[in-house]
Amino acid sequence: MAKVMIDLNCDLGESFGTYVKGLDEEVMKYITSANIACGFHAGDPMVMRKTVILAKKNNVKIGAHPGLPDLMGFGRRWIEVKPEEVRNYILYQVGALNAFVKAEGLELQHVKPHGALYNKAAIDNRIAEAIAEAIAEFNDKLILVGLANSKFIDAAEKYGLKMAREAFADRAYNPDGTLVPRSKAGAVITNPKEILERAIMMITEGKVRSIEGTIVELGEVDTICVHGDTPGAVEIAKKLFTELPKHGVEVAPMSRKLMGK
Amino acid sequence: MAKVMIDLNCDLGESFGTYVKGLDEEVMKYITSANIACGFHAGDPMVMRKTVILAKKNNVKIGAHPGLPDLMGFGRRWIEVKPEEVRNYILYQVGALNAFVKAEGLELQHVKPHGALYNKAAIDNRIAEAIAEAIAEFNDKLILVGLANSKFIDAAEKYGLKMAREAFADRAYNPDGTLVPRSKAGAVITNPKEILERAIMMITEGKVRSIEGTIVELGEVDTICVHGDTPGAVEIAKKLFTELPKHGVEVAPMSRKLMGK
Amino acid sequence: MAKVMIDLNCDLGESFGTYVKGLDEEVMKYITSANIACGFHAGDPMVMRKTVILAKKNNVKIGAHPGLPDLMGFGRRWIEVKPEEVRNYILYQVGALNAFVKAEGLELQHVKPHGALYNKAAIDNRIAEAIAEAIAEFNDKLILVGLANSKFIDAAEKYGLKMAREAFADRAYNPDGTLVPRSKAGAVITNPKEILERAIMMITEGKVRSIEGTIVELGEVDTICVHGDTPGAVEIAKKLFTELPKHGVEVAPMSRKLMGK
Amino acid sequence: MAKVMIDLNCDLGESFGTYVKGLDEEVMKYITSANIACGFHAGDPMVMRKTVILAKKNNVKIGAHPGLPDLMGFGRRWIEVKPEEVRNYILYQVGALNAFVKAEGLELQHVKPHGALYNKAAIDNRIAEAIAEAIAEFNDKLILVGLANSKFIDAAEKYGLKMAREAFADRAYNPDGTLVPRSKAGAVITNPKEILERAIMMITEGKVRSIEGTIVELGEVDTICVHGDTPGAVEIAKKLFTELPKHGVEVAPMSRKLMGK
Repeated sequence: MAKVMIDLNCDLGESFGTYVKGLDEEVMKYITSANIACGFHAGDPMVMRKTVILAKKNNVKIGAHPGLPDLMGFGRRWIEVKPEEVRNYILYQVGALNAFVKAEGLELQHVKPHGALYNKAAIDNRIAEAIAEAIAEFNDKLILVGLANSKFIDAAEKYGLKMAREAFADRAYNPDGTLVPRSKAGAVITNPKEILERAIMMITEGKVRSIEGTIVELGEVDTICVHGDTPGAVEIAKKLFTELPKHGVEVAPMSRKLMGK
Repeated sequence: MAKVMIDLNCDLGESFGTYVKGLDEEVMKYITSANIACGFHAGDPMVMRKTVILAKKNNVKIGAHPGLPDLMGFGRRWIEVKPEEVRNYILYQVGALNAFVKAEGLELQHVKPHGALYNKAAIDNRIAEAIAEAIAEFNDKLILVGLANSKFIDAAEKYGLKMAREAFADRAYNPDGTLVPRSKAGAVITNPKEILERAIMMITEGKVRSIEGTIVELGEVDTICVHGDTPGAVEIAKKLFTELPKHGVEVAPMSRKLMGK
Repeated sequence: MAKVMIDLNCDLGESFGTYVKGLDEEVMKYITSANIACGFHAGDPMVMRKTVILAKKNNVKIGAHPGLPDLMGFGRRWIEVKPEEVRNYILYQVGALNAFVKAEGLELQHVKPHGALYNKAAIDNRIAEAIAEAIAEFNDKLILVGLANSKFIDAAEKYGLKMAREAFADRAYNPDGTLVPRSKAGAVITNPKEILERAIMMITEGKVRSIEGTIVELGEVDTICVHGDTPGAVEIAKKLFTELPKHGVEVAPMSRKLMGK
Repeated sequence: MAKVMIDLNCDLGESFGTYVKGLDEEVMKYITSANIACGFHAGDPMVMRKTVILAKKNNVKIGAHPGLPDLMGFGRRWIEVKPEEVRNYILYQVGALNAFVKAEGLELQHVKPHGALYNKAAIDNRIAEAIAEAIAEFNDKLILVGLANSKFIDAAEKYGLKMAREAFADRAYNPDGTLVPRSKAGAVITNPKEILERAIMMITEGKVRSIEGTIVELGEVDTICVHGDTPGAVEIAKKLFTELPKHGVEVAPMSRKLMGK
């Protein structure tokens, strides 16, 4: 029987100038894919270079993590941008990160939109399609990472992209499959044991228990998001990385499962 | 006898958001290489896309025109950046522009640094080398455009890059071969006939008459810079583009002469 | 019988760095109040200083024109900001402009929010109140300029501010009193004669004919907005400024009518 | 005998958006004057408001801490700006911070330029004068904080400003009275006991021992800078605040000594 395979991804490279964010060096040890910020909502050229080198050292696959042009709001505030603006913002950022990846002799694996852009795309097909189109224009061998069971699915298919269906083991879900906003109580789960159990259910059954207790069908899940900027982040990443294999789950970069490499 | 070959380059795509700068559509008809701003000192993703498409339509070769991160100062104020910062700023911007070039099915031809970065590199080998290194890291088939007879020469050679030696037909030169700063009277030449004559001397003799009347040795010149944001810009570009062939000079993209394609 | 009094206001100081926008020097001759951009959506410290000096020379009253922090989108794209963010963004920008007004020995007259912030406040009382609160915190003798017959009215009253009710003689209205978005055909009126007639109806009857032909009740109007960045802007401003007095309307700064000075 | 009086100042409010910097809440307890960043090199409207409120709660006097427009470089890289640009950058930032001070019912006490602007002004009278002129234009009752025994002195006098002569107890001095750059070994002193001893010598004798062992004459010192973003910052601030009075030095806001209030 083929083993179940899962990717563990984390948003990294979110520092800016002299501002430090995230526990990149520690978390990088326990993930298989790094989503690196590209200078719009976080990150700068020096940080991007450093983070690409860190991923290389840890043998972690690299993806671009493009966001809205709003450093002050960390890309978490939706801006009324047109799909054409989204398309070009994505191209710009993916290209910028790709330069550092190329300079280090590596290849880009995936693209995962950040924050408000991610959340909007999950429910608005025009935004999801603008993102998918930009990726396809740049390199249609890149994997699009998006919320499982959302508008991302059709957009990826329309533009011929492989998609990594993502689930959040440390975030509460609404009964309709959307994430509970961070502003609500209980939105973020911090108990490592609970997170591990949720991850296993997500991976092996394609389901998660919603904040109201109901079962949410996620469908097949390819990657689990691990957060890198919370106090328990390292411990959680480590627990998933080391415990999942004991439960019959192989932890490997998304490209192994989706692109066969 | 082999004909003398010259490239005509112009800085374009310098608009930003709702701010319009330059006569891109008109000038694009009379040049062979476009240096497109990359979002640091000018340009934004929408402008970059539009300018790449305009170049494509006019069959003009595309280069990246990276600058210092200073939109307010249009990249004309030197910032005390370290060589390592320059290297990563160049990589970021070249990569960003390359994404649009790739999306349009084209290939990048060259990189020409902008403003204060260009002027500094011409006299400071650490900056010139940081620029050359960044280009080589990204793609060593890209041509580096820099001031003829300056620090750019050795830097390009050190990193194995072809270099296009640039001269400015509409800018006055000091006796030492540097450009007379824009703040000084007589720095910018606006008479199209005079500009044409200077261009011919530069191209065929590798010389220019300095603001003090002395002869400056430029050595071989591969590309002449045409400005795109002055009232007479279109007329000047048109004059060079149409008159130079009548004086035995073939106007062609720099890649023809330097890369044989 | 007391003469009807009207203020003519215009958005100015919208240049940025080397980017020039607007016909400030020409338009300044035909208005009574200038709304000066404060560096978030347009304007920079050099432009602000220059524009304040220009207003002083033309004896035009000065107001702050704060916007959302989005230079790339010129403040026209709504960003999902919280009321508390709006409040502090307004305070920051009003204070910044006030420094130049003070440096020139003048006094600030009013505050008019820009673009998406203005449009949102007109229909969302939480945003309108955040703006009014910020102004009251800074100086409750400042006039708040907002759309006539909108959420601005109650917000100004709540925070004890005088309000200048604004109408747009060169913009089409929907039957519900909101402005027809610029993206729709017919949104902007360019015929100076038609604009003058609309202005007179607005000022003397408090009414305007909507894009569908129905009559919109605006109530009393204190100021008419004149645009400063369109080709016909100067002619339109001049026509209103010189013709309105011939129709029994006194053109004077809003502070004359509202603050008795 | 009149007691010697000293002010303890610290740079605060240097967070930006979701990026946190500095131990503001802790350090605020042990200082008498806070220099609050104004949004160019650090700080944003939300952070500025919060920091002003924190100073108010701790009964700490407030000053503006304007810098160069370079968030990525934290204002530590000199940009080739003209004196007129410096003047208007200062006005903009002082005005912006003043709005929050006014909103909280307080008064601004001082202005201290940040980073590269501070260092340049200390040795270049054109920059020092541009800063002093801006402050005088805004409010000539504001105190200018600058390096003791530097170009700041004459500039303050020229524009009729009171000046607080500053010394750095935790930074090494060159024999010529300038600070040893942070990039050099030994530039930052971290031993609290040593810092206290240096502060006492500075305050009571107007002298400091240079990194080479020679004695540097500082002249009278009005304020000592305490850093707020280093691990030992709180301990050092606390030591100075609590120990100096035991050595006959009264710790009080600079306005007490310089403005008699």
